[in-house]
Amino acid sequence: MVLLTRRADFSASHFYYDDALSEAENVRLFGKCANRNGHGHNYTLEVTVAGAVDPVSGFVVDLKRLKEIIQQEVVAVYDHRHLNLEVPEFKTAMPTTENIAIAIWRRLENKIDGAKLTRVRVYEMPDLYADYCGEA
Amino acid sequence: MVLLTRRADFSASHFYYDDALSEAENVRLFGKCANRNGHGHNYTLEVTVAGAVDPVSGFVVDLKRLKEIIQQEVVAVYDHRHLNLEVPEFKTAMPTTENIAIAIWRRLENKIDGAKLTRVRVYEMPDLYADYCGEA
Amino acid sequence: MVLLTRRADFSASHFYYDDALSEAENVRLFGKCANRNGHGHNYTLEVTVAGAVDPVSGFVVDLKRLKEIIQQEVVAVYDHRHLNLEVPEFKTAMPTTENIAIAIWRRLENKIDGAKLTRVRVYEMPDLYADYCGEA
Amino acid sequence: MVLLTRRADFSASHFYYDDALSEAENVRLFGKCANRNGHGHNYTLEVTVAGAVDPVSGFVVDLKRLKEIIQQEVVAVYDHRHLNLEVPEFKTAMPTTENIAIAIWRRLENKIDGAKLTRVRVYEMPDLYADYCGEA
Amino acid sequence: MVLLTRRADFSASHFYYDDALSEAENVRLFGKCANRNGHGHNYTLEVTVAGAVDPVSGFVVDLKRLKEIIQQEVVAVYDHRHLNLEVPEFKTAMPTTENIAIAIWRRLENKIDGAKLTRVRVYEMPDLYADYCGEA
Amino acid sequence: MVLLTRRADFSASHFYYDDALSEAENVRLFGKCANRNGHGHNYTLEVTVAGAVDPVSGFVVDLKRLKEIIQQEVVAVYDHRHLNLEVPEFKTAMPTTENIAIAIWRRLENKIDGAKLTRVRVYEMPDLYADYCGEA
Repeated sequence: MVLLTRRADFSASHFYYDDALSEAENVRLFGKCANRNGHGHNYTLEVTVAGAVDPVSGFVVDLKRLKEIIQQEVVAVYDHRHLNLEVPEFKTAMPTTENIAIAIWRRLENKIDGAKLTRVRVYEMPDLYADYCGEA
Repeated sequence: MVLLTRRADFSASHFYYDDALSEAENVRLFGKCANRNGHGHNYTLEVTVAGAVDPVSGFVVDLKRLKEIIQQEVVAVYDHRHLNLEVPEFKTAMPTTENIAIAIWRRLENKIDGAKLTRVRVYEMPDLYADYCGEA
Repeated sequence: MVLLTRRADFSASHFYYDDALSEAENVRLFGKCANRNGHGHNYTLEVTVAGAVDPVSGFVVDLKRLKEIIQQEVVAVYDHRHLNLEVPEFKTAMPTTENIAIAIWRRLENKIDGAKLTRVRVYEMPDLYADYCGEA
Repeated sequence: MVLLTRRADFSASHFYYDDALSEAENVRLFGKCANRNGHGHNYTLEVTVAGAVDPVSGFVVDLKRLKEIIQQEVVAVYDHRHLNLEVPEFKTAMPTTENIAIAIWRRLENKIDGAKLTRVRVYEMPDLYADYCGEA
Repeated sequence: MVLLTRRADFSASHFYYDDALSEAENVRLFGKCANRNGHGHNYTLEVTVAGAVDPVSGFVVDLKRLKEIIQQEVVAVYDHRHLNLEVPEFKTAMPTTENIAIAIWRRLENKIDGAKLTRVRVYEMPDLYADYCGEA
Repeated sequence: MVLLTRRADFSASHFYYDDALSEAENVRLFGKCANRNGHGHNYTLEVTVAGAVDPVSGFVVDLKRLKEIIQQEVVAVYDHRHLNLEVPEFKTAMPTTENIAIAIWRRLENKIDGAKLTRVRVYEMPDLYADYCGEA
């Protein structure tokens, strides 16, 4: 069993605002992130898969295929987008680093042939990241 | 003469769109950046000042003061903002990396006592940056 | 369950020297680190907490509160300090990367409301780090 | 129990090519990596060991000794080498990131006195790495 | 006048060996780099261009076009290649960081419409880079 | 003419305190850096030399020799040292990033055969650095 991790990047806008709460409550809870004009980040995504090493190729997973899946399932949907306004899962869930990690897990789960998705890590900034490893 | 460079970060949204052009022309010119919902980046700013080293303090410039000026003149205005919608200079100029570098230069020029502003560098991503050094 | 990791930095001095051993034995054991004038590092700290995502805020933990706790419990005590001379836990324990990770764990344990501390990582240099996850 | 991780670097050449397959099949499987002139990388290695902290030294492992072992067992053999042509384990196994991680594990296992090897991580590029933790 | 810098990466093999010199002289001059099996690096290239900011687009240079030119003139020729064996300019010149910078300058000069090439920087490793700015 | 830059690292302690000033004045001027127990940093040094490329070796400067000179003239003197207490030039000059850059320039000037020292850059932290290029 070897773990293989591939990084990808996307740049997106978001804000944190709950319409069920008052403006003051949103600001108390979310600070500068409550600005509904949005602000943005260069997100870095790490996708980790686990599997046995193929004795011929030496690969846990076909790397070109893994890159295509990440590109198609995540980057094509999130990159250069406003997460709150344009990505379906964030109509109902706040696009926090935690929720982005969960959403990307759901987008990738069962899509990677021959290897098991084991961790999705999302950096919002170099000093803040979330890890999601599915539900036990 | 020594050059001293201080880095600062801000996260902001932007888009590139010229109302005088058609949608198709905007897409041709700006690609994914023409999405008017906006997308965003973690910008990194480097401010370089030049001066003689003070024989007592060993400083070209009071570092705490330099940080305060960058914070007050730039970060407080740009961070967690939508550049097109909320920052005055980008009502008329496209918030490209190039124009952000020029705008930050103008915000900092003549604000730093005792040292000369010599370069503003703005990274939009780790693989793209613009330098502005004023007009000769 | 999502893991959230926050990074922080502090700059400090330290040395490795055991008064119960001879000078020669200290040098054999600790090399250049045995210099009692001290030397220093830019330490990078990663604090990881685990918890369920709050359905309203989308957070595992209130990020502003987590930053304040790290600042108050660790950075305010360690930053710009000589660890051997000024930080109580290193009067009796050598301020190695390993022991700093354990000490920071103890400082943060039970301080973070609503989430579980799961890992403290301390980088002394980009090429050396220690992880402590508490005792099982 | 504390985990200690030490990083090291080596620069090496490699290619991916299986003589049992046709040229076309190799290109389909390995893309640009099938070029038998070789290409290369700056590899980054992270070696993680686990153990109790020594109450006198504050160390899980003697750091100078760990560096020597990594240097002698791995860097001296891999650095500035063509992995396919000059490193015995890659005569029979493809020098993929996955297989390099396994090979380095085997080179280091049982060599580190007083601490337990727990993970070998190999970065081929900043955006691609493999982890091997031995067989359970 | 603004400077715009774009980064790109390529992975390649090389060695340093002068057939006019003895084996011993090559080793004395080039150390481990004299190994004719080759070794390799993840090279990072920075291309800097200068120009006036276009009042409509806000660009010094069309970024998509700049990326295409770097891809076509440099990355397509150098990436996943053995520089000594497969890249014409290194049949006669040693593929040192210095000579790679000069060669990339010559490949890019006069190819970038509307902006002036001002600097080519090549990193062989994070701790070694060469800058070439043309001949005055 | 090509510029070649080599990076090196050293870890050291320092403090900022002027005995001719009161304690209060030192704190006002130097903040947390006025703590005479000292604190420390992982400094990163970049040494840039300029010269013609040797037609045989392809080098501006013999890289092994450049590393030895930086090691011997700077790293051996500064690394794992308390700059104020153990390095002669900082008995009289405050060991600020600016003064460290000037001091390293003076240590390296006229020591590098066959190439011209053109810039010394010192990072105290990733977000603060000083450049010294000699006196015109």
